[in-house]
Amino acid sequence: MNTRPSNHSAWVLAARAAKMNPSVIREILKITEKPGIISFAGGLPSPKTFPVAEFEQACAKVLRDEPQAALQYAASEGFAPLREQVAAMLPWNVDPAQVLITTGSQQGLDLVAKVLIDVGSKVLVESPTYLGAVMAFTPMEPNIVSVATDDDGVDLADLERKCAPTLGTGVSSLPPAGADSPWGGPAANRRSDARFLYVLPNFQNPTGRTMSEARRAALVARAAERGLPLLEDNPYGDLWFDSPPPLGLTARNPDGCIYLGSFSKVLAPGLRLGFVVAPKAVYPKLLQAKQAVDLHTPGFNQRIVAEVMKDGFLDRHVPTIRTLYKAQRDAMLEALARELPARPGQSADERVVWNTPAGGMFLWARLPQGMSAVDLLPKAVEQGVAFVPGAPFYATEGDPRTLRLSFVTPSVEEIRRGVAALARSIQTYGAELVAYPETACAPFA
Amino acid sequence: MNTRPSNHSAWVLAARAAKMNPSVIREILKITEKPGIISFAGGLPSPKTFPVAEFEQACAKVLRDEPQAALQYAASEGFAPLREQVAAMLPWNVDPAQVLITTGSQQGLDLVAKVLIDVGSKVLVESPTYLGAVMAFTPMEPNIVSVATDDDGVDLADLERKCAPTLGTGVSSLPPAGADSPWGGPAANRRSDARFLYVLPNFQNPTGRTMSEARRAALVARAAERGLPLLEDNPYGDLWFDSPPPLGLTARNPDGCIYLGSFSKVLAPGLRLGFVVAPKAVYPKLLQAKQAVDLHTPGFNQRIVAEVMKDGFLDRHVPTIRTLYKAQRDAMLEALARELPARPGQSADERVVWNTPAGGMFLWARLPQGMSAVDLLPKAVEQGVAFVPGAPFYATEGDPRTLRLSFVTPSVEEIRRGVAALARSIQTYGAELVAYPETACAPFA
Repeated sequence: MNTRPSNHSAWVLAARAAKMNPSVIREILKITEKPGIISFAGGLPSPKTFPVAEFEQACAKVLRDEPQAALQYAASEGFAPLREQVAAMLPWNVDPAQVLITTGSQQGLDLVAKVLIDVGSKVLVESPTYLGAVMAFTPMEPNIVSVATDDDGVDLADLERKCAPTLGTGVSSLPPAGADSPWGGPAANRRSDARFLYVLPNFQNPTGRTMSEARRAALVARAAERGLPLLEDNPYGDLWFDSPPPLGLTARNPDGCIYLGSFSKVLAPGLRLGFVVAPKAVYPKLLQAKQAVDLHTPGFNQRIVAEVMKDGFLDRHVPTIRTLYKAQRDAMLEALARELPARPGQSADERVVWNTPAGGMFLWARLPQGMSAVDLLPKAVEQGVAFVPGAPFYATEGDPRTLRLSFVTPSVEEIRRGVAALARSIQTYGAELVAYPETACAPFA
Repeated sequence: MNTRPSNHSAWVLAARAAKMNPSVIREILKITEKPGIISFAGGLPSPKTFPVAEFEQACAKVLRDEPQAALQYAASEGFAPLREQVAAMLPWNVDPAQVLITTGSQQGLDLVAKVLIDVGSKVLVESPTYLGAVMAFTPMEPNIVSVATDDDGVDLADLERKCAPTLGTGVSSLPPAGADSPWGGPAANRRSDARFLYVLPNFQNPTGRTMSEARRAALVARAAERGLPLLEDNPYGDLWFDSPPPLGLTARNPDGCIYLGSFSKVLAPGLRLGFVVAPKAVYPKLLQAKQAVDLHTPGFNQRIVAEVMKDGFLDRHVPTIRTLYKAQRDAMLEALARELPARPGQSADERVVWNTPAGGMFLWARLPQGMSAVDLLPKAVEQGVAFVPGAPFYATEGDPRTLRLSFVTPSVEEIRRGVAALARSIQTYGAELVAYPETACAPFA
């Protein structure tokens, strides 16, 4: 058949496929996966915290007591006893019928995107935010709008501007930042046109920040006023160091929020178990979407986790994770203070600054003015240490001076050596900038 | 805050959510899940075939030898040794780099839909077809077009008509069935505008039919001529009874096909493990979509299955499934012949007819003219037996007389009693139709 066309040309991709891209961070991680590199880059829980013996016992018990049910097709909602355990462990009144077990909390993001995002829908995210959420939303082709944040969380004045209905079609027409009210019109019309605000209130990825009590209360009230649904993602909330974070957002207004939870950080990520708690207005559609994407989350895994969690295991186990991660955070803070001390008279823009996360896995740092974390990375890798530049975490324009440091995977000894190596690379970079000042990055480019 | 709007009204669903519906079959299964009912309805593999002892050993070994890797985050592509095993067991030359491990083969359908379907894209499916595929495609809002089938598989004349470029916008403008060429224009333009044809060549769900060798060869050639990609779904192919089915479609033209495989029917569904084999033109986008939906399929499950499959386990195990299912199919065929015999002079339209599947899990039957399988179902449940009416498996208009009978979950004894109960319900229904003929269903309504 001479007229047979090349098969290659048979494939026509959906328009959304052009918007899907490999994770920038994943690509960065590839560069940093050289042997001997101390990595502050990954977001991997410490494998020391995986309760291997408990998993062994649970696997044996599940396969001995109920192998046929554990290995058969199962309900799309999830394993009923696990849904009950999830409902019982959350700090507000949750009906197990509102709990949907997902294949990792990442799947919750995909399901929410399918059910709530039309092409061009406005979706608000913190700036910076979890890159995987943006990747999950993108295939549904939303208009992603970044909302500014500070150390206390979402900036409510910026939220007020960004959640105001967009004028015209498609193109965002926002009033200037200083305008008194971006809404105009009568009070009854002051409803946001955003489909939701995606927010990580506890030990956020990437910044490690925790939203303050006052900000939470104000955010939930403002969102309710504006008819703005909240998508609360809480993978790290149990990993607090000195005291629990303030009450979550969904707990304050369950009908106005969808909550995403995960077992990845308190048990292990390799089982891919998370959950969604959703109000009745949304749950049935999330369930239908779930059924279409993978029928159900592996029933075997759900039974293992339900078995492990019996008798309050998490109450004994999670404190050991907190203790470990706190010690590693402290080691990183000490090493940073030792290796990158503030010299007398230096302003915050002239030196490396970092925050003190109250829990979770990540610390957020900022390089001196004129430096770029992307440019620093190869120099750091040369010195034997890796991190993730902050820029990819900004859905729109990012601060090129920022970087994310994970303190949970390396040991205390590796943290010390890694921070020393990081400091050397920054010094080298600084010396180069003095010699070749034209290579300095423009701030907030 | 008196002006606070009701939260309920805050939720705006995506337009696609209106097109998502609960699985009709799932709703039917709920009706039939009464205690004591013999069910030919579900598509559940027989739990007798689950290799529980091997899973126990594999769990113990994986958690003993490599717990940290098995329980940690992992690559989105899947566990490398499992990808190699998959590539090695397929009957054509597959590079492991083309294998993407999925959370059940259902997820493969979701990923393909995301990457290949735009709103309004034409997608061809067999009539009838697997309902779960239609459910996976629907959220991407395709124009699903049914292609007729016969006992040998896809009807190529109907395919030729249906895959011809659609005239106008949105509305299908097909030439009459008898037209010589639906294409018109020069040969160079004779390329299909369908994004793909979804096809189950082996022991199809729901019909149990197998596509003939001649039809496969002709379909692959025609698809290549027309630039029509094929999406080959093969969950049942290993479950042949007397001889293997003919070579698959992807094996004949790997660059023009995407292949979906599953471990659900040869090992167990509860681990949710399947795979996609895709050409280089599509694989990277499927991988990016996969990363966004659940990061990766549970690494623990992948290692368990890789461990179980070592040393040719499937070569010993799958024949035991074939033997079991063949005996159960034979029991069903015998019971049907005994309970629903053809009376002298009856035409095929006047009696119950059924096919003889050469493998898989399902048998396809058709009631006498004037009967509806949907109307029969409650009468059958009353007699103590359940099945799935065929109509929901047709993406567009369906034959209301058809029904699907699964022969793999009940025992031989239950099959005998269940078919006797089915025959009683059909006799009752027939007697009612004689008494009240106006209740008979219109053929092909």
